[in-house]
Amino acid sequence: MDVEAVLQKVLQRIRPTDEERAFVEDLMTELKGIAEETIESPGFDVKPYFVGSLAKDTYLAGDHDVDLFLAFPRDTPLEELREKGLELGKAIAEKLDSYEIAYAEHPYVRAEYRGVSVDLVPCYDVESWRDVKTAVDRSILHNGWVLENLNGRNDEVRLLKRFLKGINAYGSEIYIRGFSGYLAEILVIKYGSFLEVLKNADFMLSQKILDPGNWLKREQKIAMKTVSREADADRPLILIDPVDPRRNVAANLSWEKYGILYFKAAQFLENPSEEFFFPRTQKRGNYLSELKRKGTHLVTLVFQAPDMVEDVLLPQLERSARGFEKALSREGFNVLGWNVGHEGSKAFIMLEVDRREREKVRIKPGPEFFTERGWDFYRKNERVWIRGKRLFAEKTVKEDITEVIVELIEKNQISTGKNLRECIKNAEILLDYVPKELKNEAYLFLSREKWNLKGQQ
Amino acid sequence: MDVEAVLQKVLQRIRPTDEERAFVEDLMTELKGIAEETIESPGFDVKPYFVGSLAKDTYLAGDHDVDLFLAFPRDTPLEELREKGLELGKAIAEKLDSYEIAYAEHPYVRAEYRGVSVDLVPCYDVESWRDVKTAVDRSILHNGWVLENLNGRNDEVRLLKRFLKGINAYGSEIYIRGFSGYLAEILVIKYGSFLEVLKNADFMLSQKILDPGNWLKREQKIAMKTVSREADADRPLILIDPVDPRRNVAANLSWEKYGILYFKAAQFLENPSEEFFFPRTQKRGNYLSELKRKGTHLVTLVFQAPDMVEDVLLPQLERSARGFEKALSREGFNVLGWNVGHEGSKAFIMLEVDRREREKVRIKPGPEFFTERGWDFYRKNERVWIRGKRLFAEKTVKEDITEVIVELIEKNQISTGKNLRECIKNAEILLDYVPKELKNEAYLFLSREKWNLKGQQ
Repeated sequence: MDVEAVLQKVLQRIRPTDEERAFVEDLMTELKGIAEETIESPGFDVKPYFVGSLAKDTYLAGDHDVDLFLAFPRDTPLEELREKGLELGKAIAEKLDSYEIAYAEHPYVRAEYRGVSVDLVPCYDVESWRDVKTAVDRSILHNGWVLENLNGRNDEVRLLKRFLKGINAYGSEIYIRGFSGYLAEILVIKYGSFLEVLKNADFMLSQKILDPGNWLKREQKIAMKTVSREADADRPLILIDPVDPRRNVAANLSWEKYGILYFKAAQFLENPSEEFFFPRTQKRGNYLSELKRKGTHLVTLVFQAPDMVEDVLLPQLERSARGFEKALSREGFNVLGWNVGHEGSKAFIMLEVDRREREKVRIKPGPEFFTERGWDFYRKNERVWIRGKRLFAEKTVKEDITEVIVELIEKNQISTGKNLRECIKNAEILLDYVPKELKNEAYLFLSREKWNLKGQQ
Repeated sequence: MDVEAVLQKVLQRIRPTDEERAFVEDLMTELKGIAEETIESPGFDVKPYFVGSLAKDTYLAGDHDVDLFLAFPRDTPLEELREKGLELGKAIAEKLDSYEIAYAEHPYVRAEYRGVSVDLVPCYDVESWRDVKTAVDRSILHNGWVLENLNGRNDEVRLLKRFLKGINAYGSEIYIRGFSGYLAEILVIKYGSFLEVLKNADFMLSQKILDPGNWLKREQKIAMKTVSREADADRPLILIDPVDPRRNVAANLSWEKYGILYFKAAQFLENPSEEFFFPRTQKRGNYLSELKRKGTHLVTLVFQAPDMVEDVLLPQLERSARGFEKALSREGFNVLGWNVGHEGSKAFIMLEVDRREREKVRIKPGPEFFTERGWDFYRKNERVWIRGKRLFAEKTVKEDITEVIVELIEKNQISTGKNLRECIKNAEILLDYVPKELKNEAYLFLSREKWNLKGQQ
């Protein structure tokens, strides 16, 4: 299929219908009314702003979470903003279907209304980057810049966002480190279209510094400081925020996620297909056959995850997996890879290892022979010999990797995510076997299809 | 048995009988006659000296190699000494049963006479350490010092030498690095008896510097230089040669051999037995059972050793074993120990490894993804993913350790003793199997009985 035809087919699926659009507009009008009415009653001096993809009309069909920002005057003390912001959010949310308090730099209210998630976020009413005081303040500026510069290329943004989702490179959350929506919008604005972004995926990296806001002329000193800081941090891309010369929009983008775009863009241009945007349900396969093919073994720890949000849980799972990797390699097992995740409240850590048993006897180095400790060592061990000044002996060791892991956990010799220590102590340790719901995950991990750049088309 | 009774029994076995003594004296008289007669004929100005354990009467029964030194005047040029010394040696040896030329610092003649090996070694006729010009010159001084100081404790020296042989710590050759005969003699002279040497085996180390020649007073500057040099070299013992303040008699003693004396002395004093002096023929056992017990594997390389003396061959075998250890651990095999040696002209290198196969699939790190080489790597491999900036792929690897070794040898990736490279290329590589003549060697190695400090009594 030719590329235009592919894009048209995709657009049919991701462009909101007139009906959806009407629903969204209606919803926003209604929310605005509720907000304004709530703001007026106790005499708050606050302006409600819609920000995010809904406000910019770059949302994907079916994906319309609302971001309603409550902008306080810039002279409001921070403490007051926190307090009154939350109070106001709650007051608005009372009029919606349900809500809970969520936490970022400041607490905010996450409500539900007519089946849509509505974030009510207090911020300052900033007009320029010089006014920015809290992390969320910039959103209003972003919104304005995109609306000003997009010039009707909304569908191109939709294509890019959907493409990034399809190849698993979308989302700037710390445990994803992919492309944010705002970054996608800027790239479309800069290169002109979805296809031009793909064509420039390579060039982008060699160019390295993108400056659509022209800050390197307008605020050279500050912008250069940003460039040099981000270059030191070895980011794949430095895109100076068009609304704030101090910020790299791509600061959270990892080399991995950028690399995925890099290869997938080339693949798509060579061989365009809808599947980049909507990958077929992931490859299925038998993890036991993978183990057999590779001659390796799979250790899976399954445990009740503590009650925490995903962006706290996942990094801790990753840290724990790295802890296991390190401890096991000290113990003579080679960890070829690891994979973490959760199915509902059940978290798992998978470790692919080279063998399930290690040698029964190990050489144990002892102290220098002419010391008190040398005599102890000599007395305690059955076969003792000297190499250089040190005594050596044989040591019988635990054989099975499961036993080794149990011992490591008991002795606290694995560095784990701090909130996971206790649950890992109670983990089930499964060897070359996973429960039904993890079978395909195990396959995707062992086959590396989970990360394979060549997978899925 | 009490210790005196043990020593008496041992002495009966190691003290030469009157008959042997008569034979030795007769032999020496005869050799002296032949030497003097040969020296006179072409008008050599050379004095024959007997040195070594025969001359000092510290030889063990049945062990009576003759060292006949041919001492040239001190003003003989070195070149002349080499030439005439060899010539004279040959002339004497012509009158004996057979001979060959051997090589140390200078060539000398090794002859056979009446079933005894006779070394005819040219040297300078030195009277003091200041005259010493070649390595062998000191022997005459050693001989004199021992004769002067031994005071009838010849049997004590015999006991100590036999003990050191029994525990496998005798011999100052570079591939043994144990106690020399002269060192044993000095220790007996210093501590008074065999038992006192054993009782001081520990103290000796803490005292560290032994100076029976009183050089630290007589030649303080030179002796201190020796002490500081040898302390820097971290010798277990510094025994300033009573005939030469520049030399540490224990310079070649290794920590291992000293350590063996250290533990065996304590064992003997606690539980005296003849077996320390005459260990039962080494423990026998089944190496295959050892492999099973330990869960490890044995790789043995057997090859035709090149024609070289043992003190060149053994260090090269050791270097090669270390080369294998290093290369195999790079390849994912853990080498628990190695053992080298030869049976006649067949040399062997044994390596105990943790497993005979390694995983079939390995993770292969590739180049950074955004490079030409990155694209190559991407194209060449089936499953490719990114970690950081680098590409990774799976790689199928050779499985069997034998194949791995063959490949390592072919690719010259093992650092070996320089004269062994070619023979190792033609080595037979045996896995968990050794030829009949190496069966017990394999057992002693795998069980570590070969080096076990607690073995053999």
